Amino acid sequence: MIEEALRKRAKLVDEAIPKFLPITPPDELYQAMRHLLDAGGKRLRPSALLLAAEAVGGKPENMLPAALAVEFVHNFTLIHDDIMDEADLRRGLPTVHKKWGVPRAIIAGDALYSKAFEILSCTKSEPAQIVESIELLSKTCTDICEGQWMDMDFQTRKDVKEEEYMRMVEKKTAVLFAAAVKIGAILSGGNRDVSRALWNFGIKTGVGFQIYDDVIDLITPEEILGKAQGGDIIEGKRTLIVIHALSRGVTIEALGKYNATRSEVAAALTVLKESGSIDYAMTKAIGFIEEGKSMLKALPETEAKNILIGLADYMIARKY
Amino acid sequence: MIEEALRKRAKLVDEAIPKFLPITPPDELYQAMRHLLDAGGKRLRPSALLLAAEAVGGKPENMLPAALAVEFVHNFTLIHDDIMDEADLRRGLPTVHKKWGVPRAIIAGDALYSKAFEILSCTKSEPAQIVESIELLSKTCTDICEGQWMDMDFQTRKDVKEEEYMRMVEKKTAVLFAAAVKIGAILSGGNRDVSRALWNFGIKTGVGFQIYDDVIDLITPEEILGKAQGGDIIEGKRTLIVIHALSRGVTIEALGKYNATRSEVAAALTVLKESGSIDYAMTKAIGFIEEGKSMLKALPETEAKNILIGLADYMIARKY
Repeated sequence: MIEEALRKRAKLVDEAIPKFLPITPPDELYQAMRHLLDAGGKRLRPSALLLAAEAVGGKPENMLPAALAVEFVHNFTLIHDDIMDEADLRRGLPTVHKKWGVPRAIIAGDALYSKAFEILSCTKSEPAQIVESIELLSKTCTDICEGQWMDMDFQTRKDVKEEEYMRMVEKKTAVLFAAAVKIGAILSGGNRDVSRALWNFGIKTGVGFQIYDDVIDLITPEEILGKAQGGDIIEGKRTLIVIHALSRGVTIEALGKYNATRSEVAAALTVLKESGSIDYAMTKAIGFIEEGKSMLKALPETEAKNILIGLADYMIARKY
Repeated sequence: MIEEALRKRAKLVDEAIPKFLPITPPDELYQAMRHLLDAGGKRLRPSALLLAAEAVGGKPENMLPAALAVEFVHNFTLIHDDIMDEADLRRGLPTVHKKWGVPRAIIAGDALYSKAFEILSCTKSEPAQIVESIELLSKTCTDICEGQWMDMDFQTRKDVKEEEYMRMVEKKTAVLFAAAVKIGAILSGGNRDVSRALWNFGIKTGVGFQIYDDVIDLITPEEILGKAQGGDIIEGKRTLIVIHALSRGVTIEALGKYNATRSEVAAALTVLKESGSIDYAMTKAIGFIEEGKSMLKALPETEAKNILIGLADYMIARKY
């Protein structure tokens, strides 16, 4: 039932994409902007925004531009991240820079970024609510950049602490979930307590989501993942799993080894299973999701609230 | 007197930069964001915004965040453009990607982008005026991306027409000047006629500015220009000068030749002088500047209006 409810929201988002981001000249720019958007995706962030709006009594049909704004920001970060990570595959397709080259991928990401603010500024809400939402979304984008920068700094360090990872992940991933639900509340006239509760829900579940995402990156085969398995290991990313293992003196041969073979990645997976690092991360992820769900006590009992709880559970139940 | 007045506005902008964009953790990210901003620059766009606000009776001291937003957008495009053009020098300094590498330069540009919207959303004006300004700035950023994309498309074409160049330059360069002055008017409560006149002033002078900029790129030595002379020729850019020459059957050996020597660039300069292409572009630039200035008739007589006229003249009188 929860899955059906989530699918329904994702479908609304899917259908809104060509409407709010039609292919106009220069056509190929818009095709590049739509490349990952059209490849699907779980639409968790925009769905969360729609549900938060519903949970505070708003009209989800008025929230589609804001929901898309958040999805555009997410997709813009994917395009630019893939350039930085030199990734070839995303959602089972060649990445934007693989298809159009780095310069055009930079532009496509930049244009998606501005489109996010453009459609958010056209939302049918009070101007003061729109300004507050734009301020929040722009601060969130700055946070994402800071988180991304920290993530890169960590890759060349051996002594990254768990607290540092948590701070990085909060910025890189969790704030956009938190902004999504808070913007849904702001634009629907939700009060401060409810907005704050939703923000905290987004932060906690967003951190849980990222920790679980790091697990998925490691344990899921390419056919299901839509990108290379163990990419984080090869890039030398300091995930919670890696931090846990390194702090226990475990040696991960493939870590940061750009030419690591499939069997070397498989060996890393075995080592990280044996050290208990994957279990450690999974337990942490579950803890954050539970903490996030508990924040929703501040919200009135609605169907939307129950679906948000289901969304949180789905974050660590998904297979890719 | 005009120069003194422009210097005064530029100084206000210079002083506001560290206040609105302090170096905070992760410090190096903010240093990368500040790299080009701190290297100076003429501050023509933010100064134009301040002057437009004054010209409609606004308080320039309240307009500094908006002025900086426009300067941040300009600098973010420089950072990303330099990556795309593989440029080594800007304002006499190594470009951001030369100093920090491509991935971090992408992030620094992205963060400057979001900071622009962040500070614009914090302006002390009516929420409806802020929303209108943000809508305009975001549409402008989309236009810039479209213009940049068109510019890249043109580089591989031999038959680019003057009208196509004009459309590209309007998007790539002129809209940001137009947005700057219009935002100054919107946030200061200027009426529609005045806002429209200022927009047209920005478009016309912005096109003139870019045509002249292409001339400068060609005729100014590196010591004064702060970057390699004739960079546009080497990159194969279809500037108005090149379009004029190609349409007259002139052969430009160095065009699009990445390893062109200084003497080959000098030879291109000679050829383009002889074909009358540089004079043609200069005449066009002057025409656009005059047309732009004539738009200001719609504005009441103020000191700020006279300085805006002086700013337009300066656009094609500057040496770099």
